[in-house]
Amino acid sequence: MWHKNKKIQKEKYLVKRRRYFHMLIINERLPENAIIVEEPEIADLLSHFLKIEKVINKRGYKIYISSDVLVSTHGVGGPSTALILEELIENGVRKIIRYGTAGTKNEKVKLGSYFIPTGVSRYISNSMYQRTRNDMIYSLYPDLELAFSIYEKLKENNIDVSYGEVFQSDDFYAEEEINEIVDMETGTLFLISKLKNVKSASVLIIANYRGKWINYEEIYKRDFPIILNAILT
Amino acid sequence: MWHKNKKIQKEKYLVKRRRYFHMLIINERLPENAIIVEEPEIADLLSHFLKIEKVINKRGYKIYISSDVLVSTHGVGGPSTALILEELIENGVRKIIRYGTAGTKNEKVKLGSYFIPTGVSRYISNSMYQRTRNDMIYSLYPDLELAFSIYEKLKENNIDVSYGEVFQSDDFYAEEEINEIVDMETGTLFLISKLKNVKSASVLIIANYRGKWINYEEIYKRDFPIILNAILT
Amino acid sequence: MWHKNKKIQKEKYLVKRRRYFHMLIINERLPENAIIVEEPEIADLLSHFLKIEKVINKRGYKIYISSDVLVSTHGVGGPSTALILEELIENGVRKIIRYGTAGTKNEKVKLGSYFIPTGVSRYISNSMYQRTRNDMIYSLYPDLELAFSIYEKLKENNIDVSYGEVFQSDDFYAEEEINEIVDMETGTLFLISKLKNVKSASVLIIANYRGKWINYEEIYKRDFPIILNAILT
Amino acid sequence: MWHKNKKIQKEKYLVKRRRYFHMLIINERLPENAIIVEEPEIADLLSHFLKIEKVINKRGYKIYISSDVLVSTHGVGGPSTALILEELIENGVRKIIRYGTAGTKNEKVKLGSYFIPTGVSRYISNSMYQRTRNDMIYSLYPDLELAFSIYEKLKENNIDVSYGEVFQSDDFYAEEEINEIVDMETGTLFLISKLKNVKSASVLIIANYRGKWINYEEIYKRDFPIILNAILT
Amino acid sequence: MWHKNKKIQKEKYLVKRRRYFHMLIINERLPENAIIVEEPEIADLLSHFLKIEKVINKRGYKIYISSDVLVSTHGVGGPSTALILEELIENGVRKIIRYGTAGTKNEKVKLGSYFIPTGVSRYISNSMYQRTRNDMIYSLYPDLELAFSIYEKLKENNIDVSYGEVFQSDDFYAEEEINEIVDMETGTLFLISKLKNVKSASVLIIANYRGKWINYEEIYKRDFPIILNAILT
Amino acid sequence: MWHKNKKIQKEKYLVKRRRYFHMLIINERLPENAIIVEEPEIADLLSHFLKIEKVINKRGYKIYISSDVLVSTHGVGGPSTALILEELIENGVRKIIRYGTAGTKNEKVKLGSYFIPTGVSRYISNSMYQRTRNDMIYSLYPDLELAFSIYEKLKENNIDVSYGEVFQSDDFYAEEEINEIVDMETGTLFLISKLKNVKSASVLIIANYRGKWINYEEIYKRDFPIILNAILT
Repeated sequence: MWHKNKKIQKEKYLVKRRRYFHMLIINERLPENAIIVEEPEIADLLSHFLKIEKVINKRGYKIYISSDVLVSTHGVGGPSTALILEELIENGVRKIIRYGTAGTKNEKVKLGSYFIPTGVSRYISNSMYQRTRNDMIYSLYPDLELAFSIYEKLKENNIDVSYGEVFQSDDFYAEEEINEIVDMETGTLFLISKLKNVKSASVLIIANYRGKWINYEEIYKRDFPIILNAILT
Repeated sequence: MWHKNKKIQKEKYLVKRRRYFHMLIINERLPENAIIVEEPEIADLLSHFLKIEKVINKRGYKIYISSDVLVSTHGVGGPSTALILEELIENGVRKIIRYGTAGTKNEKVKLGSYFIPTGVSRYISNSMYQRTRNDMIYSLYPDLELAFSIYEKLKENNIDVSYGEVFQSDDFYAEEEINEIVDMETGTLFLISKLKNVKSASVLIIANYRGKWINYEEIYKRDFPIILNAILT
Repeated sequence: MWHKNKKIQKEKYLVKRRRYFHMLIINERLPENAIIVEEPEIADLLSHFLKIEKVINKRGYKIYISSDVLVSTHGVGGPSTALILEELIENGVRKIIRYGTAGTKNEKVKLGSYFIPTGVSRYISNSMYQRTRNDMIYSLYPDLELAFSIYEKLKENNIDVSYGEVFQSDDFYAEEEINEIVDMETGTLFLISKLKNVKSASVLIIANYRGKWINYEEIYKRDFPIILNAILT
Repeated sequence: MWHKNKKIQKEKYLVKRRRYFHMLIINERLPENAIIVEEPEIADLLSHFLKIEKVINKRGYKIYISSDVLVSTHGVGGPSTALILEELIENGVRKIIRYGTAGTKNEKVKLGSYFIPTGVSRYISNSMYQRTRNDMIYSLYPDLELAFSIYEKLKENNIDVSYGEVFQSDDFYAEEEINEIVDMETGTLFLISKLKNVKSASVLIIANYRGKWINYEEIYKRDFPIILNAILT
Repeated sequence: MWHKNKKIQKEKYLVKRRRYFHMLIINERLPENAIIVEEPEIADLLSHFLKIEKVINKRGYKIYISSDVLVSTHGVGGPSTALILEELIENGVRKIIRYGTAGTKNEKVKLGSYFIPTGVSRYISNSMYQRTRNDMIYSLYPDLELAFSIYEKLKENNIDVSYGEVFQSDDFYAEEEINEIVDMETGTLFLISKLKNVKSASVLIIANYRGKWINYEEIYKRDFPIILNAILT
Repeated sequence: MWHKNKKIQKEKYLVKRRRYFHMLIINERLPENAIIVEEPEIADLLSHFLKIEKVINKRGYKIYISSDVLVSTHGVGGPSTALILEELIENGVRKIIRYGTAGTKNEKVKLGSYFIPTGVSRYISNSMYQRTRNDMIYSLYPDLELAFSIYEKLKENNIDVSYGEVFQSDDFYAEEEINEIVDMETGTLFLISKLKNVKSASVLIIANYRGKWINYEEIYKRDFPIILNAILT
């Protein structure tokens, strides 16, 4: 199948490319585990739980590196996330959890509860097409064991958690027609993880209900040890 | 969102429709659990493990009904499967496992082992479009707990099992370009389950490697009690 | 044109493939003429008009074979039909008539009359895409002489018959938005016939008007000799 | 179905529109039968067989009108043809034959023979989309009786004729990848005929083989009486 | 990128092709500048401003040739325009202005004023696809200096002129749903100009407001010297 | 046209929405002119040329505000850019220049020279679809006068500048197949500018040739006064 050959060629191309130019943001060996978050404010907050050995701050991305896990921002949207994912994986990351927030118009999903995406719907025309450029719909899903482990650990801590489909949005201010739980980066994470053969999952705090935001910083602080535990075991 | 409204309208339409015409195959209350298989030969084989109370045999479909679970054929391909799924769910089924076989060209997946689909890729143009008719890609995925439970129970019995993506084919003799594990009905099962709010999973015996088939009947006989156990608990 | 080359390659592939594996259902020389029907009940009924020499019953397909014509079921929908068409043609069939039923919401088409498809509309995304996988719309049409011959013979017998376009559905319970005469297999028949250079036509009894079915078995019995005559001369 | 409602609305719109503005080319009652040709040179030639009562010559279109049939040019391509078809039908035409030439790269189709299109393939993206603007593939086909009648009459006159699919091209100098018999207007004729409920067929002289043209004027002169006979009876 | 290779191959093909067959309409060296118009009536009118040395009149196209500029008709729609553009460029034309009329439903654009297209929107499925046949959206735009020069010269003459996007229609009588300024050929001009590396622009008289036409012939006569001046300097 | 109605509804929705929630990043009146750049490092650099009155630093965006012009980062890719554009325009910005860098594989475009996009090509499936969700291709182009003014002013300063099409990429590490000048945000800028009726242009330093980057900071410093002059006059 041509898209497989293409992927193989691309891998070769990447290997060759590394010889003569540096990546945009990161050019050093990284730990195998990564927690990725949208904004620098949250990366800063989570970094206080780790023994940070190095910080990278370039072109708007901020990466806090400890010995066994790093926390990186991914910015807003699929293209911004794809860029940093490629660099993380190219430099050694093998397991990734997106820890973020999501919005909902659905009154059944409780504000402040967690949602674990087991699938990602999107418009047929979307930012993820360019990565594969063919006539196929790639299925986007987390690693079954990693996703179930996060689910189980949250439950064990009596934290409200559910699972199902999110919708990947490419335009924050053009989401009026989306009735599902909305996320802007989980699909890109799942797509690139599959193509690069890396394990990933996403765990989202329902933080925004029809434009009303909760104070989610306290939730990050309370639960980050659980998420860290899920990725490190 | 218009496709949500459409779905709601469709539900109303279905309720109304039941008043004046019978479904094509089934018109009676069914148990909540269903195991669906492609061919009548396998349905016959599995029926021997159950205390069958009634058999329906109509328009090529065969359904063996016991008090708490039924075994039904779904025929070849998405359209044939969609028809019987609609009738099963309309008559009371709420949890469905497809128990079938799949082919592979990938030497890494062992013949005779199990594969649990956690996602379903397909061509952009496919038999599932008609159900929703819009500009969205629906994500197709199993119920996380049901899929993990089958995975765990097979592992506990020391049975070789892995998980990941299958490709839904619409044409058995035009699959030369598909390099993934190929299935013809799991996507339709996941799509209709989501739209009807029913739990489902699929568990596939890797039975066909580049056109060479193994004798899979013995595997069905050996493991059906495990699958039954997963759906009934 | 690449899709022509692909077809040629595919033909070579098929020839090569036959050396080392058997087809799923049929592995023997067949007569040149085939009448295909959806369900086993109708195949049984029509078989009484022929001197049957052999019956195949496998994976839900049933084939009654006489010396110059066979009657085969094709199951529900395009994928199920494509599978058996490939096997029929690979084993010697060269002329095919689908003899079936169709539904309508259009009050102008009389229940119990015949309709001969001269074209097949469908959704842009449909089960037939996989066979050719390219950026073309294939035109789907019957053999002009065969279709006209059925039309003429029915007229000569004073049977009510009209012709025009049918819509190929991939989902029986998601047809509310289709306002045309609906069929689930004629498009697949016309597509595969064209690609394999085989003559085909379809002749449909209008049997279902907004969910109300007529008793079509008597019509099959009355007219099968006319259809047989059209295919054999 | 929305596209049906749209069509109905469009019809109403047309009726209303006629009250306040004239059509671009034709604003008078026309005979029911029309022969349409690409270029003015051929229209001139065919007009000598008729008793012409009026000639319209406007915006590049030329129309020769007799009492029971007219000969009109349609120009090059679908958009040019759609414009004049709309005006012909709006002013009374009910039966239309395109009498033209087609090219081929296929050595099996004889230069100077006739080809009757029974289907029209095209690229998924093409000039005909705008007429219907939806997610459906419209099947394009001639009127069965009219097409068969032309076929029969040509055969009776011992003229070499075959039938099958043409490919509708939208760009004469970008046809290198098309391996079929190529035509630029038959699809538009069949589409608009279906939407307007008018009978049509197309009959093409194979005049161009890989860029080499035959002298087709003599063929037009020899056979125009046969084509006239087919449309008038 | 495959479509680049394709283009290169196509160029080679064209070179080779010229050896053995003549183009359909034009087979002689042309001046570098061309003004193209839809209908023969306008070409006639504009030709009176030039010292015409030769006239070609073939297959419905009419071309008036002077020593440094020609005036050619392009007929109705993209396919008709693509054919003559290919021949003009193949025979030496390097700068092209379409001088035509456009319609509007927008009351803000004044009847009789000029509109210079700086972009061309269209339906995703349209007559221009065939030229490139790939998964890209080609951007359609005029040459910045040529378009600005026409704009500036019209302003200097105190002529009302604005600029922005036109919508390329493929079907004159199916434009009810288009709310923009409508044109049928500018997109094809911009596409072929880009692929052939030729400079082009379009300048349109707003002549039709909801089906009501102004007398635009006087405007052509008044302003043709300005347009000529823009292309020749 | 439905997408126009939708847009109107959306505008109403926005107005209504502002009553009860704050925008994510900016909630204050802004000057009419904005220069947008990708990364914080460049925004910092350019801010030294202005008399900054306020700085916003939130969720990874950095905005330097002076009395008549602001400099804002837009992050990586269309989705990140769309978010901040919406907020800038909602708070008063009416003229926007993206001042950035672009890469090329084309040896004809000189490293360190400027390129002014007059059109934006992209894959049919891309991050901009969500904004309009329909069957149209929106043409993406700068304001003619603003783009020409930047072009003219750079030329007057003897700076090397050309113009033409850029390709909007959604994935920095999946651009091997793009042979054009690549940009990741200009298309989004042009689309949102058109929908919001705001003037915009883009001016790009060719800074990256097959992965080799030039030191572009000196160019920004040298030419920012020219760009400022173009937006302020």
